[in-house]
Order: sequence, then structure tokens, then C-alpha cells
Amino acid sequence: MPMPFPEDLVRISAKVDNALNSRLANIDAPEKVVRAMRHAALSGGKRLRPFLVIQCAGLFDVSSDLAMPVALALECLHTYSLIHDDLPAMDDDDLRRGQPTVHVEFDEATAILAGDGLQALAFEIITEAEQHYSASICCRLVHDLAHSAGVSGMVGGQILDLAFEKSVPDLSDIERMQAMKTGSLFRYACTCGVTIGGGSAEDRGRLENFANAFGLAFQITDDLLDEEASKEEMGKRTGKDSARGKATFVAHLGIEGARGAAQSRVEDALAALQSYGGEADNLRHLCSYLLTRRV
Amino acid sequence: MPMPFPEDLVRISAKVDNALNSRLANIDAPEKVVRAMRHAALSGGKRLRPFLVIQCAGLFDVSSDLAMPVALALECLHTYSLIHDDLPAMDDDDLRRGQPTVHVEFDEATAILAGDGLQALAFEIITEAEQHYSASICCRLVHDLAHSAGVSGMVGGQILDLAFEKSVPDLSDIERMQAMKTGSLFRYACTCGVTIGGGSAEDRGRLENFANAFGLAFQITDDLLDEEASKEEMGKRTGKDSARGKATFVAHLGIEGARGAAQSRVEDALAALQSYGGEADNLRHLCSYLLTRRV
Repeated sequence: MPMPFPEDLVRISAKVDNALNSRLANIDAPEKVVRAMRHAALSGGKRLRPFLVIQCAGLFDVSSDLAMPVALALECLHTYSLIHDDLPAMDDDDLRRGQPTVHVEFDEATAILAGDGLQALAFEIITEAEQHYSASICCRLVHDLAHSAGVSGMVGGQILDLAFEKSVPDLSDIERMQAMKTGSLFRYACTCGVTIGGGSAEDRGRLENFANAFGLAFQITDDLLDEEASKEEMGKRTGKDSARGKATFVAHLGIEGARGAAQSRVEDALAALQSYGGEADNLRHLCSYLLTRRV
Repeated sequence: MPMPFPEDLVRISAKVDNALNSRLANIDAPEKVVRAMRHAALSGGKRLRPFLVIQCAGLFDVSSDLAMPVALALECLHTYSLIHDDLPAMDDDDLRRGQPTVHVEFDEATAILAGDGLQALAFEIITEAEQHYSASICCRLVHDLAHSAGVSGMVGGQILDLAFEKSVPDLSDIERMQAMKTGSLFRYACTCGVTIGGGSAEDRGRLENFANAFGLAFQITDDLLDEEASKEEMGKRTGKDSARGKATFVAHLGIEGARGAAQSRVEDALAALQSYGGEADNLRHLCSYLLTRRV
């Protein structure tokens, strides 16, 4: 019997925090860069991607312990991308999750290197010897993660996002950019359980559809929060995207239009889960949560 | 019958260039970041690490075709580290291999992202499906590469190197830093063939010793070249380390002392190869080349 949401998100988030904390305590490396990695990785993220990994893997009877290394690897990759995106040469943000960003708390060189180190750590964690998935599953997990994180995925999306500051993208450009920048890791999070648990090609297709719809709904609500919430609520500067004239869903659709688009993407996401039973309820709850979230 | 050196280095270097060129032509990603990756990766590096991979793997009857993906992955990692090390927040170099560095030719954001993308690409290449090493070997190769590249290895060494600009390291500090910054990837290059070809623990130990000695000899001769060669010969600014008061082997040992130290490290490297026959001759020639190299 699954616990009611959001208790399950909180519980998994705490488990991920503990596991990340232990892993990052267990690194033989210069102290400063490890402190910078810990600063970024242990500053109270929602752990949405690990939650998706564990819940989607659960659809294929994969235990959360078995899925955990993949969840941690993904969170390391996500954290590195935040550190690099916040750099002065990129989005130049000084606040993240209510804390100074890494280049502000430390310095730019340390921020670049802490990000580089977290990317390498992701691939180290996912291949650590005590894993119980098979070696061939492990290779596939590494390969897909690398592809999702690279220039055809997350990194490529960030390049497009930066280019948009100098051009006028239309709505489909923004969707394509987000499908790479944030969508790639969401798709990985939702489908790695198919790889581990041996789901079918149809399962992979359904969960890709779920991830695509969920990812866009997430991004639209993120744009809405950037517009509407205060800095105190969000723990980062808000209103910055529109002040910069940055191309967001809200800029294109207006606030009401964006709310409608988020609602409609959430319906798509729920439809993609149709063939699953009660074991997908936490994923369904997560979708509803998107529409009411304040952080 | 092995070809005489340096023909073999030139031949392998051309093979690596071709393979990298094909792989980088075959990427579905925003054009600008791919151009930046190509600019850095295809600008005429010596391909020393791929050469070490292929020659050391050859000691265990591993063909150069089988070792090639690992060689390419390592070169991608090395290239990303050069792009990031050259950034204004790090060593602030504007010239590399006779070309403008990536952040000069493009911009800082693109340089950061091209480096990030090359790191991900390394892990993608090493796990590409058509590999003929087993899945469990592949996992070990990924794990060791991630560990060597991360904060306990190459990235950690760069952190130490930057910290030295604000302190006064002694010779053992510099050796420890170099053992991480450049030594980690050299050790990986020289031992991945043991993993692929199923060499013994003794083989791994010998090739680690070889790599450690070779890596220090390489770094000492690099410091000597920085001091003595002209910008035209090296294709990058020279004399910069000493102008910055940066801690180098030459600063500690003087030019004659550094020459002697390089010679002595080369002798250590040759001694580590003692139990191998003619199949290690290219590695031996490479050691001699270090002592006379002008680039």
C-alpha cells in the first residue's frame, strides 16, 4: 500500500539526501572542491529526478535500493548542470535554493571544477562494483545517461537557451529547447527503470511520453513561479527571466495561457500512465502537485 | 615487426584524428557547440594518451581497433580538461596548439559547455554498443575512467594547481599535484589494456609504475619547454608559468636540475618495462623522445 503523497516524496527525498551525504563524505580529494560539491548537492533540492527514477522503476518491480545508484548519479548530473548554468558566463545567478551559488560562495574556478567533478562522479556511482544489476544493464545505463547529459541532450539545450537571448524564438523553439535542456534528464529518469527491470518497448514509449509531458508541465509551472513567487519563497532570484526579456512559456502564452498549457500537459502525462494501476498513483499525485506547487 | 619510432606515433595519431573526426561528424546537436568541440579536439594534438592506450594494450594482445574507443574517450576527456583549464577563471590562456582557445574563438559559455559535452561524450563512446569487450570489462573501464577524471584524480589536481598560485609548494607538493592532474589519465592510459586484455595484478603494478615515472618525466620536460621554447614552436604562450611565479619543476630544480630529474624519471620508466620484450619497444622509444622533444 503506497503512502499518500507528498509523504512519499519527502521520504524518498530524505533517503536520497542521506545517500548523497554518505557518498560525498567518502571521497579522497582536495577538501575545497569537495566542500563546493557538498554545498551544491546538499542544499535541499526537491529530488524530483530521483523520485521519478524510483517511482518509475517501481512499475517494473525494481526496488528503490536497486534504483538508488542511478537516482544518485542523475542528481549529481543535475547538480553539476545547475552549478555551471549559474556561472557569470551563463545565467549569472547568485542565489540558488536560498544559498549563495557555488561561484559566489567559493570562486568561479572552483565552481567549474566542482561541476566537472560531479559529472565524473555520476559515472563513477552508476558503475560502482556492489551494484546488483547486470553488467550489460550497467553499460546501457551509462550509455543512455551520457547521451542524455551531452550535447544532444541537456548541454545542447543550454546552448539553445543561451542563443535565445539574442534571437526571438517561437513557442516550438522553446519547447524543443526545453525538451533537450530539462526533458533529456526527465526522460532518462522515467525510462531507466525499464532498462533495469526489463520492461517492454511499449513501456519505454509510454514512459517517454509521460516524461515529455511531465517535463513540459514542470517547466511551464517553473516559468509561472519565476513570474509570480517571491525570492523568499523560491530561494532564488525571481522575475529575472522576464526582466531579461528571456523567452519563457509565460512570455509567449501569458499567465492564464501558461496555466492552461500546464493543465493540458498534466492531462497528457496522466493519459500516458493509463495502462498502469495503483502502482503509478505516486506519479499521478506528482502531476497534480505540479499544478499547485509554490516552490 | 613494429615500425620504427616516431612513424608509429604519427601513424596512430593519424588514425585517432580520423576516428575522432568521424565520431564528431556524427553528432545530432546544436551546430555551434559541435564546432567548438571540433575546434578543440581536431587541432593537432600529439595524441600521446591514445598512443599509450594502444601500445600498452598491445602488450596484452589487445588490437588497436579494440582499444580505440577507450583511446578516443580518453582524448575527449583530455580535450575537455584543456578547454576548461584555459578559461579566464582558470589559467586564462588565449592560445593552444597555435590556435585561439575555445573561449576566445567562441565565447566562455560555449567553452564551458563544449567541455561539459566532451566529458559526457567520453562515457558515451566507451559504452557504444558495437564494442567487442565484455559488458563487465566495459563497466570497469567506465568506473576507472570516471574515478581518474574526477576530484580524486585530474580535477582534484587542477584544484591543487590553482591553490599553489597562492601558496609556496615544495617539490613533493608539486609531484603530488602532477600525479593527480596529469598522472591520473596517464595511469589510466597505461593500465586500461590490462583490464581489456586480462593482464595480471603484477602487470597492472608495473604499468602504473611506468605511467607514474613517464608522467613526471613528461611534466618536467613540459616545464622545460615552457621555459626554453618559443611561442611559435609550442603553439601556446610560453614562459608564462615562470612569469606568474607558478610553482614548476624548473622553478625548484633549475634548468640543469630539471634535465637531470627528467632523465632519472625516464630511467625509472624504462626499468618498469624490464619484464616486457620487443613488444614494448615503442614505449621505450617514446621515453627517449621525451628527453629530446621540442613540442
